[in-house]
Amino acid sequence: MRVLGIDPGLRNMGWGIIEVEGSRIRHVANGVCKSAGQELATRLLALYEQLSDVVASWSPDTAAVEQTFVNKDAVATLKLGQARSIALLVPAKAGLQVAEYAPNKVKKTVVGVGHAEKAQIDHMVRLQLPGVKIANADAADALAIALCHAHHSRSTSGLAKILERSRR
Amino acid sequence: MRVLGIDPGLRNMGWGIIEVEGSRIRHVANGVCKSAGQELATRLLALYEQLSDVVASWSPDTAAVEQTFVNKDAVATLKLGQARSIALLVPAKAGLQVAEYAPNKVKKTVVGVGHAEKAQIDHMVRLQLPGVKIANADAADALAIALCHAHHSRSTSGLAKILERSRR
Repeated sequence: MRVLGIDPGLRNMGWGIIEVEGSRIRHVANGVCKSAGQELATRLLALYEQLSDVVASWSPDTAAVEQTFVNKDAVATLKLGQARSIALLVPAKAGLQVAEYAPNKVKKTVVGVGHAEKAQIDHMVRLQLPGVKIANADAADALAIALCHAHHSRSTSGLAKILERSRR
Repeated sequence: MRVLGIDPGLRNMGWGIIEVEGSRIRHVANGVCKSAGQELATRLLALYEQLSDVVASWSPDTAAVEQTFVNKDAVATLKLGQARSIALLVPAKAGLQVAEYAPNKVKKTVVGVGHAEKAQIDHMVRLQLPGVKIANADAADALAIALCHAHHSRSTSGLAKILERSRR
């Protein structure tokens, strides 16, 4: 099973793909879709095209997207929501089921605590995917989301045990 | 010039198309894209496909989308932002320029005041587009957005005068 994780953002949209075979997990690819400029429609189109290329190139079987944290900054929430829409649309358009996970759930699954720091997530992702080269922090988050989804999709499998073991 | 106006919404996304030839404006079509259900990715995909069909069927030359009003309800703002993303993406993907107008700007252009009621907008849209059958209030708003865009695209043309005249 090939899992695509996406960390949505308008400027930087992280993505990560892992392969799960029985109790084994393997890194496949990761990267960042980027958009810049003033015109929102053009930026959303750029993200759509880059993410569509990722899905076409790596043919994931399932996808997971981080839920947007609704904060007091309504303008920032709106921006993130618009980017997140692309993150949900592109895999759905390719016929994939798209799961959604709250940031705390991702952290709790991958690190063991819901309030983990960025550095801890990065560390656990590297531990799970030995030798991985990670594009940036957004791609690390995307890989964490993919790991979280793999875990919850097969929580009775060997994968759960591996995650459990590596947290000790 | 064929103008597509879109009033974004997750449940109901209104759309309206007008044809502008010199100083004449003609109604072409209007309707509503709908989505329902629990899964956000599936709903966004449904809106994407319906709106893509509208663009393919009616071949507009330019598009305009209402800006999202950021209010205190962050959850509602997020939902609307996610729907709005589709409204911006679809025409951009078809190679159209996508203009954005604040709700007050649309009202001020079409009705003459920024705080116009729904009923006033509906009335002015019908006055501008004689004999039009309007699908619902969201489609009426979408036609108002299209009229607003036509006006601002050609504000020195006869169209401006027509709008001006009909407001007296």
